[in-house]
Amino acid sequence: MALQAQVLYDFTAEPGNHELSIRQGDTITVIDQTVGGGWIEAQDSSGRTGLVPEGYLQVIGAADGAGESRSGGGASVTNAAEGWSHQGVANTQQADVIDYDDGEWDDDWDDQSEAGSRGYDQVEEEGGAAGQSTNGSTMKISLNRFPFHKGPSAEVYLLAKAPADSRERLPVFIGEVGPVWLYPSAPLDCLIADPKKESKLYGLKSFIEYQIIPNTTNRPVTHRYKHFDWLYERLLDKFGSALPIPALPDKQVTGRFEVDFIKMRMEQLQSWMTRMCRHPVVSQSSVFQLFLTHRDEKEWKTGKRKAEKDETVGPMIFSLVETEAAELDAINVEQKCEHYSRFTRSMDDGVRELLSVGHTHWKRCTGPLPKEYERIGRAFKNLSTVFTSSGYPGEETLTDALTVAGQTYEEIAELVAQQPQKDLHFLLETNNEYRGMLGCFPDIISVHKSAIEKVKESDRLVLAGKITNGDKKFMSQRLSGMSYTLQAEMNHFHSNRIYDYNRVMQLYLQQQATFYQQIADKLRAALNQFTTL
Amino acid sequence: MALQAQVLYDFTAEPGNHELSIRQGDTITVIDQTVGGGWIEAQDSSGRTGLVPEGYLQVIGAADGAGESRSGGGASVTNAAEGWSHQGVANTQQADVIDYDDGEWDDDWDDQSEAGSRGYDQVEEEGGAAGQSTNGSTMKISLNRFPFHKGPSAEVYLLAKAPADSRERLPVFIGEVGPVWLYPSAPLDCLIADPKKESKLYGLKSFIEYQIIPNTTNRPVTHRYKHFDWLYERLLDKFGSALPIPALPDKQVTGRFEVDFIKMRMEQLQSWMTRMCRHPVVSQSSVFQLFLTHRDEKEWKTGKRKAEKDETVGPMIFSLVETEAAELDAINVEQKCEHYSRFTRSMDDGVRELLSVGHTHWKRCTGPLPKEYERIGRAFKNLSTVFTSSGYPGEETLTDALTVAGQTYEEIAELVAQQPQKDLHFLLETNNEYRGMLGCFPDIISVHKSAIEKVKESDRLVLAGKITNGDKKFMSQRLSGMSYTLQAEMNHFHSNRIYDYNRVMQLYLQQQATFYQQIADKLRAALNQFTTL
Repeated sequence: MALQAQVLYDFTAEPGNHELSIRQGDTITVIDQTVGGGWIEAQDSSGRTGLVPEGYLQVIGAADGAGESRSGGGASVTNAAEGWSHQGVANTQQADVIDYDDGEWDDDWDDQSEAGSRGYDQVEEEGGAAGQSTNGSTMKISLNRFPFHKGPSAEVYLLAKAPADSRERLPVFIGEVGPVWLYPSAPLDCLIADPKKESKLYGLKSFIEYQIIPNTTNRPVTHRYKHFDWLYERLLDKFGSALPIPALPDKQVTGRFEVDFIKMRMEQLQSWMTRMCRHPVVSQSSVFQLFLTHRDEKEWKTGKRKAEKDETVGPMIFSLVETEAAELDAINVEQKCEHYSRFTRSMDDGVRELLSVGHTHWKRCTGPLPKEYERIGRAFKNLSTVFTSSGYPGEETLTDALTVAGQTYEEIAELVAQQPQKDLHFLLETNNEYRGMLGCFPDIISVHKSAIEKVKESDRLVLAGKITNGDKKFMSQRLSGMSYTLQAEMNHFHSNRIYDYNRVMQLYLQQQATFYQQIADKLRAALNQFTTL
Repeated sequence: MALQAQVLYDFTAEPGNHELSIRQGDTITVIDQTVGGGWIEAQDSSGRTGLVPEGYLQVIGAADGAGESRSGGGASVTNAAEGWSHQGVANTQQADVIDYDDGEWDDDWDDQSEAGSRGYDQVEEEGGAAGQSTNGSTMKISLNRFPFHKGPSAEVYLLAKAPADSRERLPVFIGEVGPVWLYPSAPLDCLIADPKKESKLYGLKSFIEYQIIPNTTNRPVTHRYKHFDWLYERLLDKFGSALPIPALPDKQVTGRFEVDFIKMRMEQLQSWMTRMCRHPVVSQSSVFQLFLTHRDEKEWKTGKRKAEKDETVGPMIFSLVETEAAELDAINVEQKCEHYSRFTRSMDDGVRELLSVGHTHWKRCTGPLPKEYERIGRAFKNLSTVFTSSGYPGEETLTDALTVAGQTYEEIAELVAQQPQKDLHFLLETNNEYRGMLGCFPDIISVHKSAIEKVKESDRLVLAGKITNGDKKFMSQRLSGMSYTLQAEMNHFHSNRIYDYNRVMQLYLQQQATFYQQIADKLRAALNQFTTL
């Protein structure tokens, strides 16, 4: 009994990678779900086999029917099981059975094969959905974002009470700049280090393990990329309606072939974790604390299961808001929301523009420009060689100096080629992070707008007998609370933005000045080799 | 009676310029020879009319038959008259008559129309043959080079006596570096200045006149481009077998649309004249002195006619050599000749390589690179504008600094775009001059090689009774003298080369260092606008 899956999106195979091209609407047969790294081996109707991204598929006739209910949102094979967790295809050697037993999941999850036919790439990409776009907002986000594909409507979450059994609160204070989060007295931070390639099952399955050391406990915990991915999913589910939860790093900015990939990924995971640590709400959440400070495998697994059962996710997060500030009316809320919407959109445009020219500049500085300086250098050196053959007495000063000038331009070529890694890299990475965050705002703004709309029509709802006057009042209070979270979040965003851009611009300009200074100095040294006329 | 001309080369009309496409072998009808600037209006067999370059045509059945005798060398309409002078198409309003009367020539020559339908381009190009290649060696050179298309064979010039009536001598001394020319005690120099657009015939004909002021008389003489061209032709005829006489400037190096053309041409004429002034043989020749120091129109015209009748041209120049140095045998001469041949060829390669990368670099520095810096600057400024709209208090320091950073990159864009004119320009011009000179050596070397061959077979010639033993001895002496001129010339070339490359490399590196220093300083100033973190 072979398992069938429907193709949700077109996928074009890359030659030589044992991939299979599939078209939206095709029905394919799943051959091997244990390939790992987001890939499944499948067979198409004409009998060809190859790897396809599991996120592009939807299992037909899955046991609990959950796949069906989410087809509008493009649910993937991995999301077909209950609880939105990431286990998806269980690691059974019987390819035609999917094991949905949650109790078995942890082990299976860790044991998925990540080596195999896709080699190094596969190790690198573990946990990252293949076919992700590189614009920072992965497909996974748009498929899984709670507010729009699952979870209560604006009406429901505006009226929902905070869970009785939860001690979680989302306090908003009024500070100098307006509504602000409650910042911890000692900021959380963590260091990611020591990436190690680990393998299981006699080397058949390999992956990278990172050490993460939080400044609070100073005790390292070990995580794989897919654990980060799990954390990301949890944070997105829980906070995504109120806070920008940027996607995890994928193959971005500088290209995977230009720097050591593992180092780059670690650097990017570090940036992502640092940003999460800096967020007062995220960093203090139990799921984030679990990730950083669990003491053993048992605590980690228990906490993980608990986090996956968290019900205060999506817009329900707003039920946790607590503030002493005066209630805002819908008009006021709408104005603020519009302002933030405009700001984040124009900043997104600005950041994209900078990234675009930055990438162009990167290519030029690492490609044609140094080649040209090298050619100039070589031309000087060649002339020097020719001149040396003249047999004319006493031109050693010139020929030596010409050689030095040639070497200088060859050195300049190297400087030019290496420079982007020293400055442009950080400018692009920072802007890339911001593009990731800014890409989250449309959804956040949208949750707010639908709440504003609901509150605006609450009079009509009362008249229609759908809600009581008390409900209406409660909805208005809830909307006000939502607005305070948005304002607190924007103020957090602004203060971070000012800090980050100040820092990265200084680093960029400092490095650029040093770079040009070095070239000027080199040229002067070369100049000094020539005889003064 | 319409004048017919045969088309020597294909010419493709440029759209919108009233030009006429013609094919080699076509017969066309000359309509108007008074267009000027190297152009003729013609009609093809299908009745279409338009401008064609006169150098591409050969008059059919010209009165004196001179055109016929030179058809192998591709003689042009302008060269169809006796004496190789540049009068060509006489300026008569009767289009069907060519006036070959030398007595009329001077006036006609100066009166050729250069304005008309081709506007500014026409003024610029006066005297330059249209369709010239831009590689520094114009078609005119290869067509007219004496040794190969006219003039005596190696045998003849090796035996020729110096003209009895000439007081010209070509003395070669032995200096520290070997054979050297006789250098004048005070080096000649001249300044070209004050280009003026002049017109005749009520503005119908216009041209540029330059003032040339030699340092010997300090008295300005006035010349048009075509006078320079005449001088070039005379020098080439007279010295071309012994010395490199580089072509006059044409549209080279930086492109005519990038800088003011007249200024550029004047600069290039200045370089050419400076180089000629620096040459001890050229600068002391009567034709060169005439050009620089004639006191009035009459002296100029008389001198001009005399120069055109000079018989010591082509390899006959070697009959003037005078040296006290010991006679060199053919083997020795051949070795030196081979060495110079190799050197000039490899220097030609080196210079071409530098010019090639220089042109590529020029394009990048004036095109995409500054555009990119401008985009970076704009991106910073845009971000600053967006940030200003945040409404978040206290970020003026950042937004102001970001604006300054943006402006800085816009200024860098300008610096980058302007820089080539300040340094690369001179590097390219110098190398261009050298390419022009180096392009003359193959012909010079070739004259020497054919003389060497003749001397080598002189024993056989004596046996065959073609020459006497006295002739053989004389030929060997003459060859030795030729070798001394080549050595003197190469030593002159080397000492100039060392001077020129020393100078231009220093200028280039100095300007480059200043350029990068300026950028570094600007970036540091921008950096200082940011708050220290």
